[in-house]
Formats: sequence, structure tokens, C-alpha cells
Amino acid sequence: MDKTDRTSSVGLVKTKFFTFATPPAGFRLRCGKKLGPITVAYETYGELNPDKSNTILVCHALTGDAHAAGRHSAKDRKSGWWDDMIGPGKAFDTNRYFVVCSNILGGCRGTTGPISRNPATGKPFGVRFPMITISDMVRVQKALLDDLGIRTLAAVTGGSMGGMQVLEWMAAYPEMVRSSIVIASTSRLSPQAIAFDAVGRNAIISDHQWRGGDYYGRSVPEKGLSIARMIGHITYLSQESMLRKFGRRLQDKNRFSYDLSAEFQVESYLHHQGTMFVERFDANSYLYVTRAMDYFDLAADYGGLDKAFKRLKGPNLVLSFTSDWLFTPAQSREIVDSLIRVGKTAAYCNIESTYGHDAFLLEFRQITRMIKNFLQSVV
Amino acid sequence: MDKTDRTSSVGLVKTKFFTFATPPAGFRLRCGKKLGPITVAYETYGELNPDKSNTILVCHALTGDAHAAGRHSAKDRKSGWWDDMIGPGKAFDTNRYFVVCSNILGGCRGTTGPISRNPATGKPFGVRFPMITISDMVRVQKALLDDLGIRTLAAVTGGSMGGMQVLEWMAAYPEMVRSSIVIASTSRLSPQAIAFDAVGRNAIISDHQWRGGDYYGRSVPEKGLSIARMIGHITYLSQESMLRKFGRRLQDKNRFSYDLSAEFQVESYLHHQGTMFVERFDANSYLYVTRAMDYFDLAADYGGLDKAFKRLKGPNLVLSFTSDWLFTPAQSREIVDSLIRVGKTAAYCNIESTYGHDAFLLEFRQITRMIKNFLQSVV
Repeated sequence: MDKTDRTSSVGLVKTKFFTFATPPAGFRLRCGKKLGPITVAYETYGELNPDKSNTILVCHALTGDAHAAGRHSAKDRKSGWWDDMIGPGKAFDTNRYFVVCSNILGGCRGTTGPISRNPATGKPFGVRFPMITISDMVRVQKALLDDLGIRTLAAVTGGSMGGMQVLEWMAAYPEMVRSSIVIASTSRLSPQAIAFDAVGRNAIISDHQWRGGDYYGRSVPEKGLSIARMIGHITYLSQESMLRKFGRRLQDKNRFSYDLSAEFQVESYLHHQGTMFVERFDANSYLYVTRAMDYFDLAADYGGLDKAFKRLKGPNLVLSFTSDWLFTPAQSREIVDSLIRVGKTAAYCNIESTYGHDAFLLEFRQITRMIKNFLQSVV
Repeated sequence: MDKTDRTSSVGLVKTKFFTFATPPAGFRLRCGKKLGPITVAYETYGELNPDKSNTILVCHALTGDAHAAGRHSAKDRKSGWWDDMIGPGKAFDTNRYFVVCSNILGGCRGTTGPISRNPATGKPFGVRFPMITISDMVRVQKALLDDLGIRTLAAVTGGSMGGMQVLEWMAAYPEMVRSSIVIASTSRLSPQAIAFDAVGRNAIISDHQWRGGDYYGRSVPEKGLSIARMIGHITYLSQESMLRKFGRRLQDKNRFSYDLSAEFQVESYLHHQGTMFVERFDANSYLYVTRAMDYFDLAADYGGLDKAFKRLKGPNLVLSFTSDWLFTPAQSREIVDSLIRVGKTAAYCNIESTYGHDAFLLEFRQITRMIKNFLQSVV
């Protein structure tokens, strides 16, 4: 632990790796193809208790990774993506819980994905990587927990696509999930959300540097990936937060330049977000993971939401945000309604926030209060 | 008149052209640059009455053109873009009114724009075309009407960006505008709308076939323009209309293909819209006209909305649509509130519709009823 941290923190952490190959010849994916061996990058915070009953599994969103809390080095300028939520005394209290977060299957931050070496060719998979689903991601997480000897989860939690994984956990392994916390998520994407994903993928594939997905070792499709990120970013904010954050303010000028350069702050901001994203994310991963989100439809997969939730034992917390127009409060409400219909314990809060979908990464004070109260009921 | 038309129609029409060069050396644009000569493509429907008092000016939206009603040839499969609204007995009744519609400055359908030949080089302007504004578009329309000897307008109308031109007409030439009909529009774009425009432009500019705007006579930046159109299209629809139109239905299949091809109908639809758009629109025009929309800010240009509307004489009708999230009802309401504040006659209706922004091209029965009632009060 880095004792010099002034704020409560898990301190310095390391990403660990686990490689598994399930017999007989790899992991059977939902699409019917096999894949293996599979490496999983993961991090853990806090200590596993003697009876191995205090694990909280944190599932990350589209562009997240295993590094959910702490810092890899004292020099790191930024902590893990959910550092506000994970640590001593925080929502996911590492004095009490053993928190596990792993990079998703198909990702590009350590877990096997399109950027990984294809054993059949010795080269990166590219688009020869099989299509993956949220269910595949969850089964890989299950394999990791099996290896760690963890047979019960105090809670599974995640926001956005992380919440989809939680929902899949609830349906696939209800005997293991003692409680669930689904944040800013949905049991299936709306056609509008699919449409935004599709345009983003189109931008990547249309970039001539994409080269059919075989760009590794050459220049990456940075323009296409950047556009995909910009589109995504708009959907993560709300009308109101954009109005507050940017309004119609100009970028470093008092009057229009009347040329094609960025005139407004919001243009410049999006461009910056796009450019930064290219530094840390793989374009093919973006194609695969957004597709996995599009495919996800818990009701279709389990014969209805009610059936998906039928075997659950523990209590469930669902949180949405009033200004989230990507994964709307109505979609969260659908989940809650189903849980209640099948007689499960479900708490729901539609948190007042202007931050849009991004609120799950920002409204940590409100979320923390809800989660602390909820986890007290779980023990 | 094509008497064989079963529905009420203006029949066969021709696009006319008018070229003007204002002294001394071209038309002074808002950006400070001069441009000339300028050619304007326009169409007219109905007859101008002897005292030239029955003109209705129709302003088109981003991707519209001068061809608002009728057909150019009996073989045309489609009529003009607002044929449902313009014709004998229709909202803009050509038995009574002389309807004029011209292609905007910066457009690509006959009026001078980036695709036009630059007199200085003999080649298409490309990005050497000066930046244009809604005000410039309106002053070109004014020059056209001057040439036609029209000094008063029974009404000015338009939807979306057409509505912005109406607002500019109201502020710039209040003595000429006897009434106004602003549909699904706004006095300024929200940062979210600017953001969508900016990403669309980025997609065009990022296409390696854009070549700094000098792609004429070579392959056009079709992928970039197509992506821009897809983004735009999502913003023209509503969550509800997409849900109704596409839901999560698959494209010509019963189960997922698990590859990168279009799986969902909505993906396929957007792709088709993008591809079709490339056939009829110039990518540079898209850059310029979306920028003109972003620039538009009536309050900033006239020292407040109230001042912009102060000199108006006639009555005004403002229509918005409940599900329009691009140019929201609240934005229309701002216009109405200002009109009322400065003592003008203003009727407002927020029309119940699930079609989103596109409603101004679809809800013609409801719009027609409102407009007919309104125009009766104008005479």
C-alpha cells in the first residue's frame, strides 16, 4: 500500500495474467467457434477472506480495462477508472471486500482479443478473431474466478456495458451471485444505440488504413477510430451537460475564423477526445466489443427477462440517471419491473444528474451512498 | 399542368436560373469576402398576381433544393421534396399563392457553391469557396426576389435549416415579411447539434478521397459523406420512430451471422441512406452548409431575439414536434416567447408526433391544418 496517498486509495497495484485452455480444444463461443488458449488480464484489490466469500466482481464498460483502482506506479498521473468507488472506506470497501476486475474477452488491454497473436498463423487475429458476445465475456470471467477458487460472489457490479455483464451473470450463474448492482445499463440496446455503434464501426472500416483489419505493425486506422469515439462521446453526454460545459463558446478566439478549422469549443473537445482514444484503444477491438453490445438481448437469450431472473436468490440494486439518453431510465425500469414480477428483492433509484450516460463515472457520491446502504443488507 | 395527375399537383415544372453580380465586384459575404457572379437555381409554382403581393417564399433544409413541388418529367418517380404541402388546395395553395423556392447559396443543386467554377482559376472552388452564413443565403434570396420584382411576401416558410432562413428574413427584412411560418427550427444550434455536425464534417475531411476538397473529376469522398449522412439521419429520427420502424429486427435473416456485415435492419437502412445520399449531394457543400447552420445565432447577430423581432409587422406561426430532439420544442418555444414579449402576433403549436425532426417532412396533414388556418388570417 502506498501510505503517502492523501486520499483513501488501494495504492500501488499490478495487473496479473491468467491463461487457460478449456478441454478439449479451446473455449466454445456463442457464435459456435472455438478459441484458445485465452489469457485474462485482471487486478484485485483488498484481501480474499478465509472462506472466500467476500469477492466483488467489477465489470468494465466498452473502453475500460482491468485497471479499476490504484496506480501502477507512483508516477502515474491517473488512477484506475473507478478509483473513486474502490478502496478503503469507499463504496466497494477494500477493508471488507476482495474486489476483482478483469479486462473483457475481445478487449485490447491484456485479455485475448483481435490484437492477440492467432496461434494458427503466428500473426495478430485481426478480423479472423471470432465474434464474441457478453455471454462469452462472462464465461471467461467465470473461468478466472474458478481458477482463483472463488465459488460465490458477494456482489457483481458494473456500469453501462459492465451492467450488461452483471445481468448476464444474474441469469447464467444465479447460484453464485449473492447480490447484483446494475448501473446505467440495459438488457438490450435500442435501435438508436445500435445505429450509433454501426456508424462508428463504419467509420473504422471506411478508413483506408484499416486494411481489412490487418493494420498491425503499420499505421492504424486512427481517423476512423477517432470518429467512432467522437460519436460515442456525444451519446455519453447530455444536452444539458454539453450546454453547461461548452455552450456555444468559441475555441481560443473571440470571433469566428470563417474557415474549416474548429470554431467551437465542443468541436475542439471532441477532436481531442478522438485523438487521445486512438493512443489507448485498438480499432478492431472497438468493432468486436460494440458488436457484442448490439447482440446482447437478455430476454431473447433466456426466453424473457422474467425467466432470466427466476433463479436469483439475492437482492439487486439498479441505478439509472435522469439525463442518460443512451441507456435510458426506462430501460433500467424494465429490469426492475421484471425482478419485482418474479418476486426478487430489487431496489431502484433513478439518480438526478445532468451528466448523461457518463454519470456512472462521475456521480460517485450519490452512487456510493446507494451502494453502501445496499451492501449493508447483503453482508 | 399535368392533368393526368390523380392527386392535386402543380404538375410538370422546370428549374430556372438567375445570375446576378452586385456592384462593384461581387457580393459581400458575412465573412468579409466577395463572391460573384452568383447563379441561383429556383422554381415557382402558381401565378404571381397583378400587384405582386401573393408570393410565398419556401426555404429548404440542409439537403433540399429548389425542386419543392411537382415533377420535372412525367417519368420522374418522385415529386419535389414538399409536394405534399405545395399545390392546388394544399397548405401553400397554388390557386392562390405564387410559391418560390430557390437552392441555397453554397448548395450543390444549381446555385453557386463549392462545386461551381471559380472564375479566378477556371476550376471548381472546392475549399477556396468562402464560408457562408444563413444571412448570406437570405440576401441571395432577396436579390432573386428583387429581380422578380417582388417587394412583399405573403409568407416566408421553411423547416429545420429552412426555418433558420425564415428567422433571418424576419429580422433582416421585417417590412417585406407579411407573415412567417417557422417549422421544427431554432434560433441557434445546441452544442449537441454542433457536435453532430462537426463529427460529420470530420468524417468527410478524414476520407482520403476528399483530397483537401479537390476531388472533382476524380472519385468523391463517398465513405466520409456517407458516414456524415448516417449520423445526420439518426438525429432526424426519434427513439420511438426507430423502435417502431426497426426495433431489433435482423436484416434478411433469422439469426445472427456473427460477422461484421450488417446484422440489424437499422444498420442496413442507415448504410443505404448513406450510399444514396452520395449520389445526389456534394461533400464540400455538406461541409459549408452544416457550418452555416452552426454559425447561425439570431440573438447574437441582432443583440437579442427581442431586438431581432422588434420591427416585425405581421403574424407568425411556429410549429415544433414533440419527439424532435435535434431542434427541440423548447427551442421553438424560445422564439415564441420572444415574439410575444415584443408584442407580436404569434401562434405556436407543439405537434404530437413520434417522427422526430423528420416530422416536418411527414406530418403534412397536421401541418396543413395549422398553416391553412394561419394563412386565412393573413390574406
